[in-house]
Amino acid sequence: MGNTFGTVLRLTTFGESHGEAVGGVVDGFPAGVQIDEAKIHQLMARRRPSQNFETPRCEPDKVRFLSGIKDGVTLGTPIAFDVENQKHNSDDYEQLKDVFRPSHADYTYQAKYGIRDHRGGGRASARETVARVVAGALAMQFLEQQGITIDACVTQIGNVKVSNTQNLDFQTTEQSPLRCPDPDAEAKMSAIIAETQQKGDTLGGVITCVISGCKAGLGEPVFDKLSATLAHAMMSIPSARGFEIGEGFASAAMTGSTYADLFNADFTTKTNHSGGIQGGISNGMDIRFSVAFHPVVTLGKPMPCITSDGKAVEVEIGGRHDCCQVPRAVPIVQSMAALVIMDAFLFQKTQN
Amino acid sequence: MGNTFGTVLRLTTFGESHGEAVGGVVDGFPAGVQIDEAKIHQLMARRRPSQNFETPRCEPDKVRFLSGIKDGVTLGTPIAFDVENQKHNSDDYEQLKDVFRPSHADYTYQAKYGIRDHRGGGRASARETVARVVAGALAMQFLEQQGITIDACVTQIGNVKVSNTQNLDFQTTEQSPLRCPDPDAEAKMSAIIAETQQKGDTLGGVITCVISGCKAGLGEPVFDKLSATLAHAMMSIPSARGFEIGEGFASAAMTGSTYADLFNADFTTKTNHSGGIQGGISNGMDIRFSVAFHPVVTLGKPMPCITSDGKAVEVEIGGRHDCCQVPRAVPIVQSMAALVIMDAFLFQKTQN
Amino acid sequence: MGNTFGTVLRLTTFGESHGEAVGGVVDGFPAGVQIDEAKIHQLMARRRPSQNFETPRCEPDKVRFLSGIKDGVTLGTPIAFDVENQKHNSDDYEQLKDVFRPSHADYTYQAKYGIRDHRGGGRASARETVARVVAGALAMQFLEQQGITIDACVTQIGNVKVSNTQNLDFQTTEQSPLRCPDPDAEAKMSAIIAETQQKGDTLGGVITCVISGCKAGLGEPVFDKLSATLAHAMMSIPSARGFEIGEGFASAAMTGSTYADLFNADFTTKTNHSGGIQGGISNGMDIRFSVAFHPVVTLGKPMPCITSDGKAVEVEIGGRHDCCQVPRAVPIVQSMAALVIMDAFLFQKTQN
Amino acid sequence: MGNTFGTVLRLTTFGESHGEAVGGVVDGFPAGVQIDEAKIHQLMARRRPSQNFETPRCEPDKVRFLSGIKDGVTLGTPIAFDVENQKHNSDDYEQLKDVFRPSHADYTYQAKYGIRDHRGGGRASARETVARVVAGALAMQFLEQQGITIDACVTQIGNVKVSNTQNLDFQTTEQSPLRCPDPDAEAKMSAIIAETQQKGDTLGGVITCVISGCKAGLGEPVFDKLSATLAHAMMSIPSARGFEIGEGFASAAMTGSTYADLFNADFTTKTNHSGGIQGGISNGMDIRFSVAFHPVVTLGKPMPCITSDGKAVEVEIGGRHDCCQVPRAVPIVQSMAALVIMDAFLFQKTQN
Repeated sequence: MGNTFGTVLRLTTFGESHGEAVGGVVDGFPAGVQIDEAKIHQLMARRRPSQNFETPRCEPDKVRFLSGIKDGVTLGTPIAFDVENQKHNSDDYEQLKDVFRPSHADYTYQAKYGIRDHRGGGRASARETVARVVAGALAMQFLEQQGITIDACVTQIGNVKVSNTQNLDFQTTEQSPLRCPDPDAEAKMSAIIAETQQKGDTLGGVITCVISGCKAGLGEPVFDKLSATLAHAMMSIPSARGFEIGEGFASAAMTGSTYADLFNADFTTKTNHSGGIQGGISNGMDIRFSVAFHPVVTLGKPMPCITSDGKAVEVEIGGRHDCCQVPRAVPIVQSMAALVIMDAFLFQKTQN
Repeated sequence: MGNTFGTVLRLTTFGESHGEAVGGVVDGFPAGVQIDEAKIHQLMARRRPSQNFETPRCEPDKVRFLSGIKDGVTLGTPIAFDVENQKHNSDDYEQLKDVFRPSHADYTYQAKYGIRDHRGGGRASARETVARVVAGALAMQFLEQQGITIDACVTQIGNVKVSNTQNLDFQTTEQSPLRCPDPDAEAKMSAIIAETQQKGDTLGGVITCVISGCKAGLGEPVFDKLSATLAHAMMSIPSARGFEIGEGFASAAMTGSTYADLFNADFTTKTNHSGGIQGGISNGMDIRFSVAFHPVVTLGKPMPCITSDGKAVEVEIGGRHDCCQVPRAVPIVQSMAALVIMDAFLFQKTQN
Repeated sequence: MGNTFGTVLRLTTFGESHGEAVGGVVDGFPAGVQIDEAKIHQLMARRRPSQNFETPRCEPDKVRFLSGIKDGVTLGTPIAFDVENQKHNSDDYEQLKDVFRPSHADYTYQAKYGIRDHRGGGRASARETVARVVAGALAMQFLEQQGITIDACVTQIGNVKVSNTQNLDFQTTEQSPLRCPDPDAEAKMSAIIAETQQKGDTLGGVITCVISGCKAGLGEPVFDKLSATLAHAMMSIPSARGFEIGEGFASAAMTGSTYADLFNADFTTKTNHSGGIQGGISNGMDIRFSVAFHPVVTLGKPMPCITSDGKAVEVEIGGRHDCCQVPRAVPIVQSMAALVIMDAFLFQKTQN
Repeated sequence: MGNTFGTVLRLTTFGESHGEAVGGVVDGFPAGVQIDEAKIHQLMARRRPSQNFETPRCEPDKVRFLSGIKDGVTLGTPIAFDVENQKHNSDDYEQLKDVFRPSHADYTYQAKYGIRDHRGGGRASARETVARVVAGALAMQFLEQQGITIDACVTQIGNVKVSNTQNLDFQTTEQSPLRCPDPDAEAKMSAIIAETQQKGDTLGGVITCVISGCKAGLGEPVFDKLSATLAHAMMSIPSARGFEIGEGFASAAMTGSTYADLFNADFTTKTNHSGGIQGGISNGMDIRFSVAFHPVVTLGKPMPCITSDGKAVEVEIGGRHDCCQVPRAVPIVQSMAALVIMDAFLFQKTQN
């Protein structure tokens, strides 16, 4: 519970932001799968600040594999890896030792554990997601070999939305510093990011993910509907506040006759309002979902905080901050989706 | 996987809609807890069609407890229960034997299992949720004894929304046939339900849930954030298509400075944009979330279906159908929330 | 934890000895498997007192399937079943209400739960194993269809041992009231049972199990070695006190050169000291193990007990008692073995 | 499955013998527990070859903690650690690349995975147990703070047995190079080890473990009886072939009246034939069990092996070998016992 995800394919992660290292162990990964390490570092790079609107934090993040892969092929044994943390001056964080920042996990960790590593967010830091991306990159390679691809892009930042979310051009996305497939929307997003950053404020957004090539029959019908495990995976990403599949919240305002996905003769459907999942099980159409992220409350100005004995204080967190972390979350969304789909794929083999 | 939910408190359910019975086993429920069976039947009754807009299906649903409770007190052993299914004439379903209805789980079950009980939806029927409500009613009694209450209501049907979702009057909800706390909205909802039903069409909607009295510290910080396990639970309910916590999708358009929940001196927060969960852990404020449901595609008129060998056919499902099942899902949302919170509550005891 | 066994194939059981019913839910059982109900009742019958040395308790035990099987074929959904308990006069157990019997689970249940169903042992009764046998009978049918058979027999009662445990004739076993494959040993066993019963005393024994037809590659190498999960399964049977695989405890006194199982050219081995498992993984040879059972301390005479407030009392448990329950445990050993092997078999499919 | 052990307290391990590192992640360990790293290295040292009868392999084994502990106190987050493997000349193992040794996991790994790391046994090497000892040392510190101690010693090597296994002097054990509490037996053990080693042969043995201070009420009554989870844990140790609790196999030959553990007025028992566990639940008495280990088939002389294409070959494994590895397994037995007991201890907190 807590630090392990999955049933057949299981990722266990560890690491505080300013401890020795972050990393993970992937268990249940089949033997004999060719792994291209370059692709892992490629996905890792997409998680890094990609352009001048984001944190200029230098994070080389070399992944070290400790087990489970020999000569580029998986052994069927646990694949362990770690990424060392850069050494930081702990004094930088001294001022935060007994301080709870608003809309952070400071107070809740303290309430839960009675102790916390206050440096850089500790285990609550987004740095924890490094391990998700390494594991996700492994899973994506397995899935590609099965003909399944997972793409994602930014479809909203602040109040700027991509105009057409049905036809997302993932080729364009790759060229885009904001991971946005719509150049017009991206220009506006860049503008509000620049404007908001100047005010020392931050922005949230939405990421949309599309899984293609997934055959019908994946997902368990009752509690572990594919839509439910995807929701679990996505809502476990730091700052995630909403999840919807297919038409999502919009479907609440549709009528049954407009919502119905009528069949073609080959069992594909003429529309895909359901987002590729019926009764919790994939139907062979693209699986489509979106995830909403709140703006991170690490502002470029002093924030009203509270000390552990209840006194109000103003604290300036320091020079580094991201105005909008949503573009960096794109590979995290892809990675978590890959873990869910690969787990369902492997589990389904037990039923045939 | 699939038919079991939870870690310490675990519900395993079983049953096809037209098989012998539906039911479940609750394991991990602490010993010595007083159980009032009347309250279970009360929650069960709230799941039944409550008014003339819904199915006039007669479903007495007597819960039979098989184990785990003696003289009204839990024994610490598994609490098993079943609810017999009414006998149906299987001939009624003969026409559906080799037919896949649009936006139903017919085709996906067939693809997954190579076999399915086609009568009344089989395991994919909403009847499966009976077991969730029985288990949820047990959990709600445990939680009440800990000072935790779980309320839910309908906040949208079709395009009619409750005007103020911040102050939900759950007393009013209890009087409302549509489980709606806002009489004005309810009047409009009733009107569109009547109108839509006449057209043989159906409506979706949104349910909002509020959990009060939950102390800070529940939930696991990484993969099993309380927001993630709640999302998992809610998205596992039939027809659920979206989940959001606190400001949810709206938070994507907020700035960090407006989103921030500033602290009071007693560690409560002045606002509750985060919906009671920070970094995946409860912060002691009300936990608030919403779930979107698509309209069920069981229309009061013939629907274009497809046979298992790919031929197009029109099938009329029969006289019984619900125009809007959302009000009936209110106790299901509460029940699943209760299972999540009680599980987190029990797990947290291992850490203190 | 506790009432669920297995990873992919999972059995959850419920029921107190004198509650409404005992039963279980089997999840993860593949769809499309033909089930012969007669074989289930056949295995159930083998669990019943088979001859005059044992309890003359009448226990018809009709299994009622509630879900998961339609027209004799599994649906891939949970297979739930129950067996009603006979109504007993609760007054019979009144004298045991506040009494802890020696070498029973009375005191330990009370210490664990603070409450217990004292009637007939409650959840600690061997009646709990009914559900194991039903589930085991299902698993055995699946395994047979894969060419895997599971046999077991009594190889020791009291101090009487079968002379040759290497060549166990399971045809003879089936004819034997004591489930013993060696007629000479059986005659002696019958004699000591008769003698011991007359004294109002009881006997333990040993059961040996042989699994044939299991291909190489089943079992997980580290914590879930097949030898470890078999041990777990067997030691979970009431009264089990010892487990050994292959040469077992005798191997401790062998040298490496005599213990070594040398290979034939087809990868079978010339000897099978290891009992068919190397490094936790099946090697394709017969899997052989034994389980020791202590004598049940339900004597035909008054026993020194203790009340819940620490006073010594003598209590006669009543007329019914088994002098030796070991023969009845044979189908339970087979059933638990079947659950372990089928689970490993299904899990292995995820790795290929 | 496979590389994770436990329910609330969970150890996940990784690492091939000659890969980069071996290590593990401990999750579910409560926050705020003081950890003395010296005690961990102390237990690790006990796992190392202690005297001239064993492998003169130099294995410094520095444990590196990567997360979960700050300033000597646990954070409640995952405790990850690794131990680097020494670099070896891979050429040393070239001759074993396509060779299956008798009574090793070579053939079974190949059958399971279709690939294996043949160097030094890979994941099947006893080196895997390093992670168990580190985790066990953490658990033992937690348990000590709860008044629970776990001791173990060698009670048999080859055919030499300790004369009295009831009164094991663990003070003496600590001074003994063979971890044997009985100086007379130890002298004989040393003699047969010397004699056997000269012949290039190997010996097995038995380890007995005693857990003291464990209150009544730990363990789950049905499938996860404390005796069953201990059996699982012990049989997962490399080379384990038998497990018994209390009187174990000897109990099969006892009568109920001699086996009965009669109560004292304070609920302790006058005897402890049951080994501290009744109905799967601890009764407050010492928990006592034994584990049998087969001799390791790595002889000091050429062994008849088989190639992957079925040809017989003689292979000499090399100069290093242990004549008897049983003494080194003592801390492994203690460690696995500690993981089981701490897991049961934490789980029990959910039920009160």
